[in-house]
Amino acid sequence: MASLLSICFTALFFLQINGHCSSTPDALNGDRPLHVSSAGSFKIALFADLHYGENAWTDWGPAQDVNSDRVMSTVLDIEKPDFVVYLGDIITANNLPIQNASLYWDKATSPTRERGLPFSTVFGNHDDAPFEWPSDWFSPSGLPEIRCPPDILRRGACVFRGTIRTQLMAGEINRDPLSRSRVGPSGLWPSVSNYVLRVESMGRRAGSVVAFLYFLDSGGGTYPEVISNAQARWFKSTSEEINPNSSVPELVFWHIPSKDYKKVTPRKPCVGSINKERVAAQQDEWGMMDILTRRHSVKAVFVGHNHGLDWCCPYKNLWLCFARHTGYGGYGDWPRGARVIEIAEQPFSVKSWIRMEDGHSHSEVILSS
Amino acid sequence: MASLLSICFTALFFLQINGHCSSTPDALNGDRPLHVSSAGSFKIALFADLHYGENAWTDWGPAQDVNSDRVMSTVLDIEKPDFVVYLGDIITANNLPIQNASLYWDKATSPTRERGLPFSTVFGNHDDAPFEWPSDWFSPSGLPEIRCPPDILRRGACVFRGTIRTQLMAGEINRDPLSRSRVGPSGLWPSVSNYVLRVESMGRRAGSVVAFLYFLDSGGGTYPEVISNAQARWFKSTSEEINPNSSVPELVFWHIPSKDYKKVTPRKPCVGSINKERVAAQQDEWGMMDILTRRHSVKAVFVGHNHGLDWCCPYKNLWLCFARHTGYGGYGDWPRGARVIEIAEQPFSVKSWIRMEDGHSHSEVILSS
Repeated sequence: MASLLSICFTALFFLQINGHCSSTPDALNGDRPLHVSSAGSFKIALFADLHYGENAWTDWGPAQDVNSDRVMSTVLDIEKPDFVVYLGDIITANNLPIQNASLYWDKATSPTRERGLPFSTVFGNHDDAPFEWPSDWFSPSGLPEIRCPPDILRRGACVFRGTIRTQLMAGEINRDPLSRSRVGPSGLWPSVSNYVLRVESMGRRAGSVVAFLYFLDSGGGTYPEVISNAQARWFKSTSEEINPNSSVPELVFWHIPSKDYKKVTPRKPCVGSINKERVAAQQDEWGMMDILTRRHSVKAVFVGHNHGLDWCCPYKNLWLCFARHTGYGGYGDWPRGARVIEIAEQPFSVKSWIRMEDGHSHSEVILSS
Repeated sequence: MASLLSICFTALFFLQINGHCSSTPDALNGDRPLHVSSAGSFKIALFADLHYGENAWTDWGPAQDVNSDRVMSTVLDIEKPDFVVYLGDIITANNLPIQNASLYWDKATSPTRERGLPFSTVFGNHDDAPFEWPSDWFSPSGLPEIRCPPDILRRGACVFRGTIRTQLMAGEINRDPLSRSRVGPSGLWPSVSNYVLRVESMGRRAGSVVAFLYFLDSGGGTYPEVISNAQARWFKSTSEEINPNSSVPELVFWHIPSKDYKKVTPRKPCVGSINKERVAAQQDEWGMMDILTRRHSVKAVFVGHNHGLDWCCPYKNLWLCFARHTGYGGYGDWPRGARVIEIAEQPFSVKSWIRMEDGHSHSEVILSS
């Protein structure tokens, strides 16, 4: 018995360190699967473009974050999701004259964490951006009171270059067991939030995978707004490895819409409530959409970034969806809300709608058809 | 005798620490004066826009730096100046995928240091800028070989956010006694290269100040391209303190032209050889030019930034001068050179000309008239 335990521990140790001595594919090593509820469904709330931390040196900025807290709390209490996805631009780092932006990152995830819900995050273009000094700080009014050690110049301590993606992610993962985020393969650097999570069945079919959720870093901030060819190849090889027959449905999440979003015109059979601006797409397309649109198991892509768009449109084999601007930070005064996604196991379906801050819902759409 | 020495040392100690128990004004504390030569003159070479470190991952980039070395060496060997001013954009930090850009900063100053010449530096808009990732690194060709530790993501070690102004400056000052640069008052932060140097007489009039050289940080890179109101007030109070009757001539050096440069039209009596582009001025004007143009001891302002301009134009009580693009880095293919300034003590005059990389000179102008 003792030697069996010893072998087992040794195997587990190697699994943790090397991730090679197991039949679990590399991409899922260390992953803790999510599970459908006892009702046979799995509900995801998408919080997009929260933009925490704006103008912390004024009254206005912190008030926006309180409002965003309220929006998230409302949605979580009405929908009671099984999982929450933070879809980038969680903070407005270019508006943060502090050294460690994890403070605001944690604030943004607190409504979810307080309710004990698992969650994961991807990066937007504002999350690791360097601080942009307001030009009026150079006028006679001067600099406001900001958090700086007194001996600024000698210590070089008061530099606001943004908190790097790996630090934000490590901060989240290390602090909170509810986080299911992962730092992606180093070969995909400088992109970081590249990982896959599986949603598993419970009960009789326990362990079988109901859906794969793919998270990608669409860049921006410290590097171009793009999904690289290396990321596209990673998705292709990973999905072919862990879902070789495309038998399990796949949903994909990132922040900045691909250029293909520009190709769809949001009229029927699209579903949404606002179409107030042009699609602000990634700067290049290096193969990701080609791969997705050739893979019939991919049901939908979900992005944020455009605060004035909330539609889902069919495109080739899948749906291209915007989330809904959730935060009071960031541009635009359209009423706030959150896209909700519900995966049903038997029969399989993916349904989505938008839950608004005043409690009402709209724009229900079936994405698995 | 012992107690006299003790008092003397105590006084010196307080002078170093507090800068208050001496008749030396604060702005000059720790300053080592420069001196006119035995011929009664003081010659300055201005090296502007060297842009070291471009495309280090190709053959082209390092070749540019070798060319810039040659330009500086030519000018130094012909002119044999008493002092060298590096007028900003010494490096192109936004093109540097390394963590500590002091490596390239040192390369740029090496022709001067090798000749044992004192020098000082001001910051341009490229010196502390964060790295801009080339978009083709995200294409199928991928990232080139760049200097990174192997375990990029875990250590967070491979982040190219630029080397902060205080680190670049501290690196220079601590490494080399020939540097006369100084980190300016902390109240002027985030601007850093704000200081004044004095050129003193030798011989019979030893100790009397022949000219004050003011260096200012005109911003850019990590913060807006601007001279702040705080800097303008610092110049005003400092110049009124150390040169109360405006009896000593003053020259002023910074990188980005003020908006007033746009007001002059480079025709006679301006002097220069190229006028190939529009003035790319600072984004705001917060009082610096008002103060300078009301102070008759200010003879000239020298800037770089525009590689296609090399003129000096009279403006109110002073001259507005461009340097000459010295580096092979940076935009533009106009032949490289350096502006030279010669201060004569008796009778006082400030003369300037441009020395080209092929050895010839042109555009001589008297700036003290």
